[in-house]
Amino acid sequence: MSDAELRTRAASLDAEDSLAGFRERFLPADGLVAYFDGNSLGRPPRATAERLASFVTGEWGGRLIRGWDEGWVELPVTVGDELAAAVLGAAPGQTVVADSTSVNLFKVLHAACRLRPDRYEIVIDTTNFPTDRYLVEGVAEQRGMTVRWIEPDLVENVTAAALAEVLGERTAAVVLSHVDYRSGTILDVAGLTQQVHASGGLIVWDLCHSAGVLPIALDAADVDFAVGCTYKYLNAGPGAPAFLYVAARHLSEAAQPVPGWFSAADLFAMSGTYTAAPDIRRMLSGTPNLMGILAVREGAKMVAEAGLEAIRAKSILLTEFLLEQVDRLDVAMLSPRSSERRGSHVTIQVPDAAGVAGRLGAAGVIPDVRHPDLLRLGLSPLSTSFTEVHEGWAVLADILGPPH
Amino acid sequence: MSDAELRTRAASLDAEDSLAGFRERFLPADGLVAYFDGNSLGRPPRATAERLASFVTGEWGGRLIRGWDEGWVELPVTVGDELAAAVLGAAPGQTVVADSTSVNLFKVLHAACRLRPDRYEIVIDTTNFPTDRYLVEGVAEQRGMTVRWIEPDLVENVTAAALAEVLGERTAAVVLSHVDYRSGTILDVAGLTQQVHASGGLIVWDLCHSAGVLPIALDAADVDFAVGCTYKYLNAGPGAPAFLYVAARHLSEAAQPVPGWFSAADLFAMSGTYTAAPDIRRMLSGTPNLMGILAVREGAKMVAEAGLEAIRAKSILLTEFLLEQVDRLDVAMLSPRSSERRGSHVTIQVPDAAGVAGRLGAAGVIPDVRHPDLLRLGLSPLSTSFTEVHEGWAVLADILGPPH
Repeated sequence: MSDAELRTRAASLDAEDSLAGFRERFLPADGLVAYFDGNSLGRPPRATAERLASFVTGEWGGRLIRGWDEGWVELPVTVGDELAAAVLGAAPGQTVVADSTSVNLFKVLHAACRLRPDRYEIVIDTTNFPTDRYLVEGVAEQRGMTVRWIEPDLVENVTAAALAEVLGERTAAVVLSHVDYRSGTILDVAGLTQQVHASGGLIVWDLCHSAGVLPIALDAADVDFAVGCTYKYLNAGPGAPAFLYVAARHLSEAAQPVPGWFSAADLFAMSGTYTAAPDIRRMLSGTPNLMGILAVREGAKMVAEAGLEAIRAKSILLTEFLLEQVDRLDVAMLSPRSSERRGSHVTIQVPDAAGVAGRLGAAGVIPDVRHPDLLRLGLSPLSTSFTEVHEGWAVLADILGPPH
Repeated sequence: MSDAELRTRAASLDAEDSLAGFRERFLPADGLVAYFDGNSLGRPPRATAERLASFVTGEWGGRLIRGWDEGWVELPVTVGDELAAAVLGAAPGQTVVADSTSVNLFKVLHAACRLRPDRYEIVIDTTNFPTDRYLVEGVAEQRGMTVRWIEPDLVENVTAAALAEVLGERTAAVVLSHVDYRSGTILDVAGLTQQVHASGGLIVWDLCHSAGVLPIALDAADVDFAVGCTYKYLNAGPGAPAFLYVAARHLSEAAQPVPGWFSAADLFAMSGTYTAAPDIRRMLSGTPNLMGILAVREGAKMVAEAGLEAIRAKSILLTEFLLEQVDRLDVAMLSPRSSERRGSHVTIQVPDAAGVAGRLGAAGVIPDVRHPDLLRLGLSPLSTSFTEVHEGWAVLADILGPPH
């Protein structure tokens, strides 16, 4: 296919795209040809910019401390419920928006291990995101437990067979990422959860790279715990509060290690003794970051309006369109070829990824670099057009050598 | 003094107030006669509203992921250093702005106890803020330690004599609040720190109710650890990130329990093994909330411009002016009468505090309620005028009965 033909194809895919209108709902990124990093940091929705400004003036400035009695106190749970409905496939009362993914993972890991006091192993894969691995090692040390490593193939990631090798009566908890941060490989949430349960262990899913771009069904899959960030496909801004999910059946027993006034049964009693809230609030700690939570609300609202099935369908079309073009270059691909197994980013292997990224950036194309030799090309369905994918690819092809 | 005379006096105090101009730097609170709760939630500075809006459009929207290479990664430490210089009396490299006060207290408490492995008691007073007490109990349980309680007089709070009774060879760490959240009593940071050190223990100061309104000299007082929030006198907004200080001499040994990619020596190495950063970054965990940190920067900047000595001098004049008027009502006072020992809020005891607060609120005066019988009247020197204090008092006098 010639370049002119690809352009025509991109234009026609854009014309048929039912989500095309969402692109205008984001603030412009001046001078950019293509933004291929919505999988690291999503673009700011105009609605979020407006909401934050109106919050500062109207609610923080106008209501001041009274705001806490007018819904602020409940926001971590209120927006948690909204996110649960729009993004996580979860009934109300099991999700909060607060803290960072790291802090939330720390909390649910301790909670999960406490629920399996007679077991002493935490399972995680060596390909998982560094923070997840660091935290598993840290929590294992703190609880006198052992880390059991899965060493998966980079593209296949954690398979049922690989998991079967490490599960046993020792297994207290297993930490897996729904979509691998490097390859973009999707794991089978329902199947692997069932497998962990069969061993008597509990599962903790990290949803950072799937929340807002893949349909998720935490309740239906019988998941125990989940965490994830909101600044990628949920577009809530750099370092916006993360989310945390605890299945209702564990709520009465789930104990986390960082108690604070927001996790206490009676927030304003200021009483002498700590009693954890009976509900999901027990997973909170300190005063929640309200502006961040409101940004999460805007992100979840947009996803709900677009619908995750439509978002996923466009994500597949986007990555397939990109793959088709990437296949014409001399680069190795780390992402699964099967669309069913691929999230919303495509990872290619190029020597001197940082150097290539620098040249791309100078030409207005922003990818994500993982040293030393990976370029992740993230396609965010609500803000990325097919024409943008093609134009970004054309710049990449200029740098990497002529397409065949 | 007649009401007319008090009004004249307020006007003349305002005319002589070198900080009076700062009041206009805050967004208006429409319809309010007096805001007496800057000690719970400071008002939004106009500069912060502008900075947040420009960040969303210009940096988040315009620079996108590139921002992380353009100073974002360093912001928790950069703004930590700015806060250290403007507010904490601390040299650079010892302070970060991140997470909540609860999470930060959890981290430094574990770090402090690890530095005293042969000791088994954590000391805290029964009057301390609930979260501090909950966390001390939680950390003690997690480490197999014991909580040793000080039961101080409500107004006197923790004295050297009370502290002497509980310190000993068992003492690993002591947690105290610089300014008591109920009474507003100021503790002697330097003296009590020295006393704890003489016992061989380490001190953790909670600066929530003093940061930005009282001069603090952490380095000069030889403090080991400190934490505090930024949404009171630093005006950074509801749930804005908190701060955390570790004295340089402890940095190489201070180990905290929530490792994440932001606390790792090499953030982007994504390496297999966790090595804590050699510097203050080791106290971080996950991706920091940038908008919150930028709001802290604006707050610290305003305090630096006004100067803490001038802020403190006005704070004393404000509370003295209020006390003079409160003394004409039939209410008990929980705050110290000596200005040297009183922070920037005055606490009075009234039956049915919530009912009184409701009537005050309906008349445009916002105090802070602590059930069942305390009203805290917080006076924030940068945003509160003497006329405001008088007008708020006049409404209170109308409700509580005629002044004598």
